Amino acid sequence: MYGYFNGTILPVDQISFGVTDLGLLRGFGLFDYFRTYNGRPFQWDWYWGRFANSAVKMHLTVPVQKDEAYRIVMKLIEKSDMPEVGVRFVLTGGYSPDSISVTRPNLLMMTEELHPSPSNQYEEGIKVILDEYVREMAEVKSTDYKRVILLAQAIRSARASDVLYQKNGEISELSRSNFFIFKGDRLLTPNRHILHGITRRTIMHLAQNDFKVEECPVLLSDLYDADEAFTTSSTKKVLPITQVGDLTIADGRPGERTRYLLQEFEELARNW
Amino acid sequence: MYGYFNGTILPVDQISFGVTDLGLLRGFGLFDYFRTYNGRPFQWDWYWGRFANSAVKMHLTVPVQKDEAYRIVMKLIEKSDMPEVGVRFVLTGGYSPDSISVTRPNLLMMTEELHPSPSNQYEEGIKVILDEYVREMAEVKSTDYKRVILLAQAIRSARASDVLYQKNGEISELSRSNFFIFKGDRLLTPNRHILHGITRRTIMHLAQNDFKVEECPVLLSDLYDADEAFTTSSTKKVLPITQVGDLTIADGRPGERTRYLLQEFEELARNW
Repeated sequence: MYGYFNGTILPVDQISFGVTDLGLLRGFGLFDYFRTYNGRPFQWDWYWGRFANSAVKMHLTVPVQKDEAYRIVMKLIEKSDMPEVGVRFVLTGGYSPDSISVTRPNLLMMTEELHPSPSNQYEEGIKVILDEYVREMAEVKSTDYKRVILLAQAIRSARASDVLYQKNGEISELSRSNFFIFKGDRLLTPNRHILHGITRRTIMHLAQNDFKVEECPVLLSDLYDADEAFTTSSTKKVLPITQVGDLTIADGRPGERTRYLLQEFEELARNW
Repeated sequence: MYGYFNGTILPVDQISFGVTDLGLLRGFGLFDYFRTYNGRPFQWDWYWGRFANSAVKMHLTVPVQKDEAYRIVMKLIEKSDMPEVGVRFVLTGGYSPDSISVTRPNLLMMTEELHPSPSNQYEEGIKVILDEYVREMAEVKSTDYKRVILLAQAIRSARASDVLYQKNGEISELSRSNFFIFKGDRLLTPNRHILHGITRRTIMHLAQNDFKVEECPVLLSDLYDADEAFTTSSTKKVLPITQVGDLTIADGRPGERTRYLLQEFEELARNW
């Protein structure tokens, strides 16, 4: 795997951050992550747009323009010599003279091995546990994932795969992916306190041909009469959720409409 | 300046973190910071205790014991060859194979040049602006300082030095230091949603000989009849606050009792 760090391309294991980086010392960093299909960055325009928007909201200047970033990404993909890869961008507040003042941001772009969800999760659906929490600045893809890392043991103990955040009964998102439910042919997804996922956006586009897609508050109480539930992310694609805490969604089997959307998504990806 | 990183002592500019570190990628890190007086770590026992406690709360194992850490710190101080230094510990979730799972923590200990507050701030007092916010897991010295870094421009525009956090009218702390007010001979300091500062603790001990020290909710409304206000931290010591947003504390001059506590603190430090 290869990475680009502040102007230089190197094997990933030869890249490192100095100890005064504000991402490291002060958690002042943001990132983005996408993957390739057919060796090309999937939904590049949307990912770049989101990354640039996160940077604006964190008052950081991205040191490369979109076209240059694309050329670098294609070079990294080519050098990595794998059929498909993940690509991670990390932008931090840079090296600080006093451990707090932002100077020149550090930009890392690197390829990563993919970690797809195991196939049995698609066949059986996953369980998630609930947590009363809402991410700060949820629309910014900041590097702050303390919450889910601290919940890792609780997730394992519950034989669950992830956590579903809710606050005052309103559902927002999973730790690193978005949330959808079907009620009949209505497809509902939370409209706020979320990261605007690119796979979420892709699925909303694909789904609108066949279903009534609504971005709206989704409450815990909505789970009781949901017919299907699933989560979306670049690595999970469209992954059925069959249990939320102690509650089984419908009959506890992945739903037909969810399976259909996964097929639609995979077809789009296949032809990317 | 010198640092210890996972077993090796090197000049700080030769130490670096690989790109899969969870402090960098996921903001999963904590730290602590103290300084020397007479070349010895001030309040070492208390700082070590807090650092170890932060690690427990983040489910991380500190890879060195207290005695070994002390020996390393003394070696770093000696090699750094400055009359007095700051010492920073950083403990992260370590290098992760999948960008999310914690494996073996990375521990960095390093000396830093001190950045004392300018002397005119002690003579005139500082201004702080208000922000409606409370730190997540405030009692853990995590690396999450996004909030104050994003407020840097607002602080500068207001000709202020820092931010004072409050939530629903209850004051907690400044961005990197604790908060106190005097009402007559009563010394009040917030009792919750705070990092338990070591300088705060030191001042509370010193003050109890002469004043009635109370840890209790401190409200914004308490500022109106406060006689004095100040903030404490290892670098700020006891620094008067004379303005909070548009509100001037008492007559807008640093108070006598604040000055007295600073003198008491400096005497303790001088004899450390």
